[in-house]
Amino acid sequence: MTKTQGYATLGAKKPLEPFTFERRELLQDDVSIDILYCGVCHSDVHQVRDEWAQSVYPMVPGHEIVGRVTAVGKDVKKFKVGDLAGVGCMVDSCRECGSCDKDLEQYCAGTVFTYNAPEKHTGKMTYGGYSKHIIVNKHFVLHISEKMASPEKLAAVAPLLCAGITTYSPMRHWQVSKGHKVGVVGLGGLGHMAVKWSHAFGAKTVLFTTSPNKTGDALRMGADEVVISKKANEMQLHAGSFDFIINTVAASHDLNPFLQLLKRDGTMCMIGVPDHPHPPVDTASLIFQRRSLAGSLIGGIKETQEMLDFAAKHDIVCDVEMIAMNEINQAFDRVVRSDVKYRFVIDMATLA
Amino acid sequence: MTKTQGYATLGAKKPLEPFTFERRELLQDDVSIDILYCGVCHSDVHQVRDEWAQSVYPMVPGHEIVGRVTAVGKDVKKFKVGDLAGVGCMVDSCRECGSCDKDLEQYCAGTVFTYNAPEKHTGKMTYGGYSKHIIVNKHFVLHISEKMASPEKLAAVAPLLCAGITTYSPMRHWQVSKGHKVGVVGLGGLGHMAVKWSHAFGAKTVLFTTSPNKTGDALRMGADEVVISKKANEMQLHAGSFDFIINTVAASHDLNPFLQLLKRDGTMCMIGVPDHPHPPVDTASLIFQRRSLAGSLIGGIKETQEMLDFAAKHDIVCDVEMIAMNEINQAFDRVVRSDVKYRFVIDMATLA
Repeated sequence: MTKTQGYATLGAKKPLEPFTFERRELLQDDVSIDILYCGVCHSDVHQVRDEWAQSVYPMVPGHEIVGRVTAVGKDVKKFKVGDLAGVGCMVDSCRECGSCDKDLEQYCAGTVFTYNAPEKHTGKMTYGGYSKHIIVNKHFVLHISEKMASPEKLAAVAPLLCAGITTYSPMRHWQVSKGHKVGVVGLGGLGHMAVKWSHAFGAKTVLFTTSPNKTGDALRMGADEVVISKKANEMQLHAGSFDFIINTVAASHDLNPFLQLLKRDGTMCMIGVPDHPHPPVDTASLIFQRRSLAGSLIGGIKETQEMLDFAAKHDIVCDVEMIAMNEINQAFDRVVRSDVKYRFVIDMATLA
Repeated sequence: MTKTQGYATLGAKKPLEPFTFERRELLQDDVSIDILYCGVCHSDVHQVRDEWAQSVYPMVPGHEIVGRVTAVGKDVKKFKVGDLAGVGCMVDSCRECGSCDKDLEQYCAGTVFTYNAPEKHTGKMTYGGYSKHIIVNKHFVLHISEKMASPEKLAAVAPLLCAGITTYSPMRHWQVSKGHKVGVVGLGGLGHMAVKWSHAFGAKTVLFTTSPNKTGDALRMGADEVVISKKANEMQLHAGSFDFIINTVAASHDLNPFLQLLKRDGTMCMIGVPDHPHPPVDTASLIFQRRSLAGSLIGGIKETQEMLDFAAKHDIVCDVEMIAMNEINQAFDRVVRSDVKYRFVIDMATLA
């Protein structure tokens, strides 16, 4: 067992605070990583505060992890000491089911999430990336290009491991490409990446936001147009014109004005899990143009690697605000207020 | 102009009653048909009673029409006098848009429905199949095999023109085939045809119903299993196991217990338009297995012909109860009570 430091919360109403704990021994297929940066996902806030009613304490959150390999198990060939490496939302799965067979481990019933999940080898709960060090099975460790090795780049790569793949995967699945018109609902941690991917894939990209002051950022990130979704007349101009809409807004909101914007056979894909349900869906608007309302969860490991490679090739990273580890509680409050451009990343060197 | 007889309603609260009206002159691309049988669709009731708030009176309903050709316009080659012919929900469309180009006229913004829609040539409203005679552009007239010429068969073919194609089209679009597990929600006019198609396409077919007394019929029609959808424990046995579910129930109901039964990447397709919305959809259940909630509207003309040909080849027809024209008002009341096995068809010879 290896002792390490992190930040944990001891209960739903408690702040995150310094925490010392042990990682498992390095197994033959494991990779040991010194964590350099870890992104702050809105789901970290939900889980730390037990808003999904499944939290176990103490909890060390964090699933947007980048760092350098410090040791590898004897059966690990694809990583060596000194390599840049990333870890996302998952650290294990059953490896045998239909979803695992298709490199869709995120849909496996036996997925072990990076924190707040029962660990297979020790039976204890997994602890995440708000820490100095992590040990993960090689299958769930990602390569990160040395092109991304500068501190600024590397910090901005971290949120690709969740916000990046969560937006990349549905766009690939629904085959977003040149000639398509794609909508992105919401410009937050997820939405800003969706805009970047959509633009990189060659689609005409329209950002929907309720905040006019996000227009400049959206255009800079690659949006061709910004629509203020509260304005029915602006929305109406786009009726029946979208091939695909990715809806990144988890807060409960009326989906119907967006469904109306889809073409025949268009799909709106939800990626944010709401605390309470969205209002009723007008199924007639699905029926009358054979539209679909779908959902998508993160992405598989193979596709996450593809995404990281694509990002390195096209020099795509997240827009981040760097914080010190001891600023995490204020950062959580700002995440809740959507007061972040567009993802906080913890500089783990600040964790003494 | 040709004078003909039918049954019309003169207002939302009025019964259907005998009505004399004129059909347009035979145009060069038109087919004139003596109507032998016309099915009674639940949407006839909705429209006669103005439940969709878009009814124009007098209204002659009916869009499940079979009969024999009595005359053809000079540019009509594909039909000749004496042919069996069918007309479904549409009698015209723009013929130029992207949907029309893809033989999906039902999604054209310029679709002219068979009744209660502005007719292109005269500007008057279209009158449907509760009548002796109809004139329709050849593109919207279907061939019916002489194999189906017996009175019993022909009457049972009529509802294929709406109930048949409305269920056939989404099953083809989502590629239902051998090896699939398919759910059908509801055993009414639509649902009983969905069971027959699913069985004919080789899928393992499960009917969901709230009426245990429909079990025998469902098994006879080709269902492999019947699940009483009110019983949560029966439903739970099928969690995550369906490739495709076709939901034929228009009445507002909770969709979430059915969404939970879909496999990863499974789709539930809605085909019934509810009077008021279904309760909120749990988008998390879409997200966590990349499921889709979709809709589908009738089917295009080309596919309707394919469906009729498939039905003739495999000897598939609807289960019908024949009524006389003057029994239509009682039949409407029974449709509302779902007291029909499984579609009323009007014998037009009973219209003096």
